[in-house]
Amino acid sequence: MVTVCRKLKKLADDDPRRVLHSFKVGIALTIVSTLYYVTPVFKGFGTSTIWAVLTVVLILEFTVGGTLTKGLNRAVATLLAAALGMGAHHIAILAGDKGEVILLGFFIFIVAVIATFLRFMPEIKKRYDYGVMIFMLTFSLVGISSFRDHETFMLAYKRLLTIAIGVAIALVVSVLVLPVWAGEELHMLTGANLEKLANFLEGLGALYFGEKVRVDEMKIKALLQSYKSVLNTKATEDSLANLARWEPPHGRFLFCHPWKQYLKISSISRRFACLVEALSSYISRSESQVATELEKHGNIIEACKEICKESMNAMTVMAASIRAMTKLSGSKQHMAAAKEATNRLKISLLEEGLLLRETLQTCTIVSLLLEIVSCAQEIEAAIEELAQLALFESSDQVNAGSGAREKRVADNDEVHDVVIVVLE
Amino acid sequence: MVTVCRKLKKLADDDPRRVLHSFKVGIALTIVSTLYYVTPVFKGFGTSTIWAVLTVVLILEFTVGGTLTKGLNRAVATLLAAALGMGAHHIAILAGDKGEVILLGFFIFIVAVIATFLRFMPEIKKRYDYGVMIFMLTFSLVGISSFRDHETFMLAYKRLLTIAIGVAIALVVSVLVLPVWAGEELHMLTGANLEKLANFLEGLGALYFGEKVRVDEMKIKALLQSYKSVLNTKATEDSLANLARWEPPHGRFLFCHPWKQYLKISSISRRFACLVEALSSYISRSESQVATELEKHGNIIEACKEICKESMNAMTVMAASIRAMTKLSGSKQHMAAAKEATNRLKISLLEEGLLLRETLQTCTIVSLLLEIVSCAQEIEAAIEELAQLALFESSDQVNAGSGAREKRVADNDEVHDVVIVVLE
Repeated sequence: MVTVCRKLKKLADDDPRRVLHSFKVGIALTIVSTLYYVTPVFKGFGTSTIWAVLTVVLILEFTVGGTLTKGLNRAVATLLAAALGMGAHHIAILAGDKGEVILLGFFIFIVAVIATFLRFMPEIKKRYDYGVMIFMLTFSLVGISSFRDHETFMLAYKRLLTIAIGVAIALVVSVLVLPVWAGEELHMLTGANLEKLANFLEGLGALYFGEKVRVDEMKIKALLQSYKSVLNTKATEDSLANLARWEPPHGRFLFCHPWKQYLKISSISRRFACLVEALSSYISRSESQVATELEKHGNIIEACKEICKESMNAMTVMAASIRAMTKLSGSKQHMAAAKEATNRLKISLLEEGLLLRETLQTCTIVSLLLEIVSCAQEIEAAIEELAQLALFESSDQVNAGSGAREKRVADNDEVHDVVIVVLE
Repeated sequence: MVTVCRKLKKLADDDPRRVLHSFKVGIALTIVSTLYYVTPVFKGFGTSTIWAVLTVVLILEFTVGGTLTKGLNRAVATLLAAALGMGAHHIAILAGDKGEVILLGFFIFIVAVIATFLRFMPEIKKRYDYGVMIFMLTFSLVGISSFRDHETFMLAYKRLLTIAIGVAIALVVSVLVLPVWAGEELHMLTGANLEKLANFLEGLGALYFGEKVRVDEMKIKALLQSYKSVLNTKATEDSLANLARWEPPHGRFLFCHPWKQYLKISSISRRFACLVEALSSYISRSESQVATELEKHGNIIEACKEICKESMNAMTVMAASIRAMTKLSGSKQHMAAAKEATNRLKISLLEEGLLLRETLQTCTIVSLLLEIVSCAQEIEAAIEELAQLALFESSDQVNAGSGAREKRVADNDEVHDVVIVVLE
């Protein structure tokens, strides 16, 4: 109980807008409830008022873009489906009482199959998934109810009107009460990711190249870990960029703000994070060893230190420039300094007779290849653990029939390829 | 139009189960529609029959696990919320006509705020997000309708029963008509990811170390790219593992199948893919250059070729072993051969006077650091492009007030740090 409370408090502290959003949902629901309490309104809509309540709960999302996308999807899909559903009803009644059931059932079946299949299309799934589902739902509801209640027109009309009211209430609350914009979230996330990468460079400089910093070792270790989340933000960023396009201009985000460019920056940031991940696997494994090796070469250490520091500064400036929405200034000097240090580093490597530039690249490739092999070994161990946990049979049992053949070629060099073929 | 048709055909060809799922939704919807057409059933439930239709459309997911999770969430949440909503109604009517409205409104507000906030909890979001939303929805509906229709008990009872019928129909169709299991999807995805990594190793051996393969260059380039999707499957895998836990034992997946172990394998696979990404940035940039450098050292090339080939074989065996659910056999020999080749490679490096093992690691770290700098430069360029597209102001304009101060320290070494402070 105490743990849960502590967790909830942390959730609220991490982002107070979460608490705010919860109250926004409460407010919107209270507003829409009044439709029920005010007798003249209720008399007009009857039990259809329920759709307004449903709509508010279903479409009020954390960001304005989310609410807008869902609201538009819901409203447009309902309109289209109601119109088509009524058309289907009018065609179906021409076929007599029994024919009506069969025709309606057939229409609903066809619409359900087509709509469900369309939802697999990436383009639809990304933006209109909710709309297609609502279309299928409304078409079925209107089609089916028309069989029992021949006042289908009124039903469809009321459903449409109450859903529009629900969408309007959700939108007003979402936009007017301290709005959270998806675009701004994306904007801040892109900046935050750059800062995390800068943190790594700071930690690397401190821990590995002995740059003096004012933080203790625990904090350095944390700096070295924070990049990991950058690797997994693609889905969030794609979705935010998608929602941001629906949002009206607000604050400093004008019409046609280049949201795609954020995705480009994020994509390079992820590649950066991948390189950091590769680098991490080296420094974590051989911390002291390589430090000793490097101690002999003061110039190299100095250059690396400089590279870390200047790149870190440049990344911090970039993050700050995105956050403040100002043109880059300052990062150029830092990047130039980092670039200069890389040149110095290459010369030092040459002078110290360590290696040529080309050899350096060869070594890296060779070295990464070695690392990949050890990664493959880890995968092998994990699969063995899985085979044990999930009681996998040994392949001999599975391939009992082909066992003889396997044995016969066991002395052959190509035995492993045979095993692969058998298993496939 | 032709493009769309071709895309749809590709969707169906890529995974024919998508077409199957679409028909399953159509069938389930047709079955649930008959509730409306059969007069005695409709007389029993009345317009509540609508909830059965809604339920089928909303919960019938692609995988059995998805349908089961959503169905259970919906059924349990409706039961709890209906009970609580009726409790709230009974308390509210004690307060007289006006008090009833205020009390009901208050209850609904509180439930909405708490439920919305709970949805931010990762533990809840992962598994019970849909349930919490349905709880909030049902509580509001029952609470609000009770104000107009004092037969709340019947309403809640009918809603509950029709939803149960909807869940049952969706589950029966999902499980009995050629089921798609989330667990099996996860299982196959894990294997497919390993195969993609093996593909990269095959492509690397062919393109970079000149290993002879029977495929043409276009196909090799494709082999070198296929690893990219491995980097972004985390969200899918987490969700599948989550759904798989709800699924009953089926086929060769027994009760308590170790789904978590798949996530462990995937996590190492992603690290593997990150190393591959780092390696890619080297080989793509300096293809011919390094090949020339390596040509002088036949032993090294041979060893690298061997490493690629054996690791590739090992990964292929691992993928096949997961797919066939057999214990690893054969991969051990391949991994041993790869390991032996890495030892030979290290000795060769030493013999050719290229470098010592420690130097190799140092070089890699240095080299990755250089790569990180050039990645940072790319980020800088992308941000500059953003600043141009989004009409960012120059920071001078923004910090007009502090401009003087900035200039004053411009000759100072620490100028960049000042800029950062100002921007933050």
